[in-house]
Amino acid sequence: MTATVNRTDVTGQMIIAGKPVRGSGPTIHGINPAAGERLEPGFAHGTEPDVEAACAAADEAFAPYRATSSEDRARFLEAIADNIEALGDTLVARACAESGLPQGRITGEVGRTSGQLRLFAGVLRDGGWNGARIDPAQPDRSPLPRADIRQRKIPLGPVAVFGASNFPLAFSVAGGDTASALAAGCPVVVKAHDAHPGTSELVGRAIADAVASTGMPAGTFSLLYGAGPELGTALVKDSRIKAVGFTGSRSGGTALVAAAAGRPEPIPVYAEMSSINPVFLLESALATRGADLGRAFVASLTLGSGQFCTNPGLVIAVDGPGLAAFVSAANAAVAETVPTPMLTPVIAGSYADGVAALEGVATVEARGAESDAPNSCRAALFSSDADTFLGSDVLQQEVFGASSLVVKCRDAEQVRAVAARLEGQLTATVHADEEDLDEAGHLLSVLELKAGRILFDGWPTGVEVGHAMVHGGPYPATSDSRTTSVGSLAIERFLRPVAYQDVPPSLLPTAVADGNPEQLWRRIDGRLTQD
Amino acid sequence: MTATVNRTDVTGQMIIAGKPVRGSGPTIHGINPAAGERLEPGFAHGTEPDVEAACAAADEAFAPYRATSSEDRARFLEAIADNIEALGDTLVARACAESGLPQGRITGEVGRTSGQLRLFAGVLRDGGWNGARIDPAQPDRSPLPRADIRQRKIPLGPVAVFGASNFPLAFSVAGGDTASALAAGCPVVVKAHDAHPGTSELVGRAIADAVASTGMPAGTFSLLYGAGPELGTALVKDSRIKAVGFTGSRSGGTALVAAAAGRPEPIPVYAEMSSINPVFLLESALATRGADLGRAFVASLTLGSGQFCTNPGLVIAVDGPGLAAFVSAANAAVAETVPTPMLTPVIAGSYADGVAALEGVATVEARGAESDAPNSCRAALFSSDADTFLGSDVLQQEVFGASSLVVKCRDAEQVRAVAARLEGQLTATVHADEEDLDEAGHLLSVLELKAGRILFDGWPTGVEVGHAMVHGGPYPATSDSRTTSVGSLAIERFLRPVAYQDVPPSLLPTAVADGNPEQLWRRIDGRLTQD
Repeated sequence: MTATVNRTDVTGQMIIAGKPVRGSGPTIHGINPAAGERLEPGFAHGTEPDVEAACAAADEAFAPYRATSSEDRARFLEAIADNIEALGDTLVARACAESGLPQGRITGEVGRTSGQLRLFAGVLRDGGWNGARIDPAQPDRSPLPRADIRQRKIPLGPVAVFGASNFPLAFSVAGGDTASALAAGCPVVVKAHDAHPGTSELVGRAIADAVASTGMPAGTFSLLYGAGPELGTALVKDSRIKAVGFTGSRSGGTALVAAAAGRPEPIPVYAEMSSINPVFLLESALATRGADLGRAFVASLTLGSGQFCTNPGLVIAVDGPGLAAFVSAANAAVAETVPTPMLTPVIAGSYADGVAALEGVATVEARGAESDAPNSCRAALFSSDADTFLGSDVLQQEVFGASSLVVKCRDAEQVRAVAARLEGQLTATVHADEEDLDEAGHLLSVLELKAGRILFDGWPTGVEVGHAMVHGGPYPATSDSRTTSVGSLAIERFLRPVAYQDVPPSLLPTAVADGNPEQLWRRIDGRLTQD
Repeated sequence: MTATVNRTDVTGQMIIAGKPVRGSGPTIHGINPAAGERLEPGFAHGTEPDVEAACAAADEAFAPYRATSSEDRARFLEAIADNIEALGDTLVARACAESGLPQGRITGEVGRTSGQLRLFAGVLRDGGWNGARIDPAQPDRSPLPRADIRQRKIPLGPVAVFGASNFPLAFSVAGGDTASALAAGCPVVVKAHDAHPGTSELVGRAIADAVASTGMPAGTFSLLYGAGPELGTALVKDSRIKAVGFTGSRSGGTALVAAAAGRPEPIPVYAEMSSINPVFLLESALATRGADLGRAFVASLTLGSGQFCTNPGLVIAVDGPGLAAFVSAANAAVAETVPTPMLTPVIAGSYADGVAALEGVATVEARGAESDAPNSCRAALFSSDADTFLGSDVLQQEVFGASSLVVKCRDAEQVRAVAARLEGQLTATVHADEEDLDEAGHLLSVLELKAGRILFDGWPTGVEVGHAMVHGGPYPATSDSRTTSVGSLAIERFLRPVAYQDVPPSLLPTAVADGNPEQLWRRIDGRLTQD
């Protein structure tokens, strides 16, 4: 492939097992949302034969790919990271054009993406992901001897990944889903998001080149273009696909969950879908720094045109002078915001519709400046009393973009009542002073059951990539609260345990072999040891 | 409750949050299948108000129960184990009468049940289940400082457990599902199996008494009687239930999976359903000890009237003199078997139907002796060539009971082809000599993708309770291959991770507190340490 396509060219082709393939479906184009301009070249959507070819290649690659060592897979992930970084300005310029996001944000996202790949290289070298356990034989146990039983985790099989629109790099072709699935030993078939097809091709080729240069099986990675309802569903329904990673809308995620559940062999779907990320402002914090909080809140709200899964779409506090100061400062900050482009015309249209729906049921506190620029996001802040909020479905729905709602409560008890009524969330935020800690403790025990991440005295829009991060949460934030899509724990989504009973030493996987050749931390009779 | 009902009385009542409650639905009786006799007293099925009361109590108990310490929950599990053991002969006699299983088997199962509870007490004290991770703050990091992020696991919420018919103790009211859910911090609502209602009441009271004596919230445990399609579905659909454990038939399991997926908030279902547990006999092993293997196989096949999830229902080997010796010895052993009672009239009827269906498509090799005893299992051995097997759905279906099918293959390649075509299994067994190890290695890489446990030179019917055991496997063996229902890893089914970002030290859970007060193994910046 490297012989025929230059690494920095955008050709409009898919990549199936290393080979460039032009689709035979309808042609779509990237759109520069800031300019409202169509970008070249066109990308022809793939069709079912392309799904078939990619899945067949992934299936064929699975056995040799999962047999590679942790070290070999770590080097493969590092080669992907190197290739992505080597794309330099070409990649940044294309991603900026296709997303309307500013250069600084995209440059940061390149680093986040390569950083994630390197994080999983480290996870592979650490080896804890094997979950190695050994219960040694007890031949003299009475009344029955105990067999030798060992456990390790193995990859589920080929994984389908659906790129997200709002992070064209970090949650897309080489994002966290792909990085964690490849680390686990699963081949990956990506369905690119139509919002950034050129970015997807560049990153896809960076992966395919790393497959080739590190000697991985060609079918370890494929990249397809296509419509979600047709090509995406065909991909999820293919019997060779064994798990799905998705970041996107609630309707898109639930459709994939239904498709996966309806298969003859149902498979897990990790869909990160919908969250309004409540922020609780407690009394003393509001009294001492209400206006500062209001300004900082708007900075988080409007970051990236509010197009974050963790955008703070709900603020909950006891009504009073502190909250008034917060709202007043927030209103002033919102009024000063300059419209910024949204990712796609569809997203901009949905945002405008969502804000219009809120205008009918909540008080408009402030709007950002108007603009004639296409696809722009005009920030919006609403307010409502808690009784209205609790009785309204519309007010509890996510509006993707820089829109938020302040819910004014009678007292701390009503704040807790609102917390208890929330759906599942990716995050919940609490601003609390020393005097608020008792109340914060009550709230924390409720919020633990509602969110994957709870943060104090900050804003939810930054999602650190590390070992302790949870980017997940109860339904409908995700379709599976037992996991995270960001951070090293994400590898566990694509693994399952296997037990080996009295398996001859020469056939035992090295992770559970005698003498611990990989020097792993293992549980021997339940106790962690590196022996 | 202890004041009104004696611990060893069987009264026919349910237990809701510690209180004896008589149902208002149809009355069912335990049946002694060996004698075909109805046992007293009658048990009136519960109805939806009972589900409502049990779920409300479980929901109310959840907050205080999950706030208990690991040590307190460990003592609670040990108290349950003590109470079950203290039931002594009363429990053994009732379980024998209701199941038709021999006293030695039931006595062993009492030990297995209390042993499982004590295993999870140890898991709680070890503390690894918390999954504690800390990524310390990096205030000086550039360009942005890093927040302090900590992760631990918390329980999902109230769990519904469906007792199995075939292990009236170890996979029933206080079985592995209940033990692991209670260990995780989840209140449990059990739907008792109609096949052993008296055993269920005795064990349920042992749990309820332990709830009271160790000061746990009353709603931590409830026990209901009722029909699966009505009461069971109502239980799974109750919004306060957050996960389901089930062991039983494929149709029962898939119905619960569908009910859970159809909820406004879908929840995980851990259903252990169906497995035919293939046994592969390799060439040299067959040549050197074919007849011995045949006799040992029949002992495993007929154990407990074949009513094990891991019963060896399929034998696969290359046809030849070794396999002929195996079949010949197996046939002789089957012919010598004495019919033994099955668990229920329904199970005995299904077994007879399943065997009759096989008679139409496979060669009858041997049958056990006939019997006039009610509900008895007459062992059956069939054979078929591999081509017929590969083309037949009937031959690949589980017949619950002491029936098995020998699949005769042309060569090793066809053995592998049969392995590759199998559905998901709980176990796969290989008998191999030194000379067979190359072939066994090829087979192992296929079987890893088909089964939760792979064992060599033994029989699958013993399932050791320990840390390394996997009693699970790909669909349709279970509805979720990422877990196990036996062994200490089972606790992870009922947990999810939560991240705490910049949470004030006084509010941090002890598992991730500074100074490591619980002396846990934790990942600090990804590295395991007890510091």
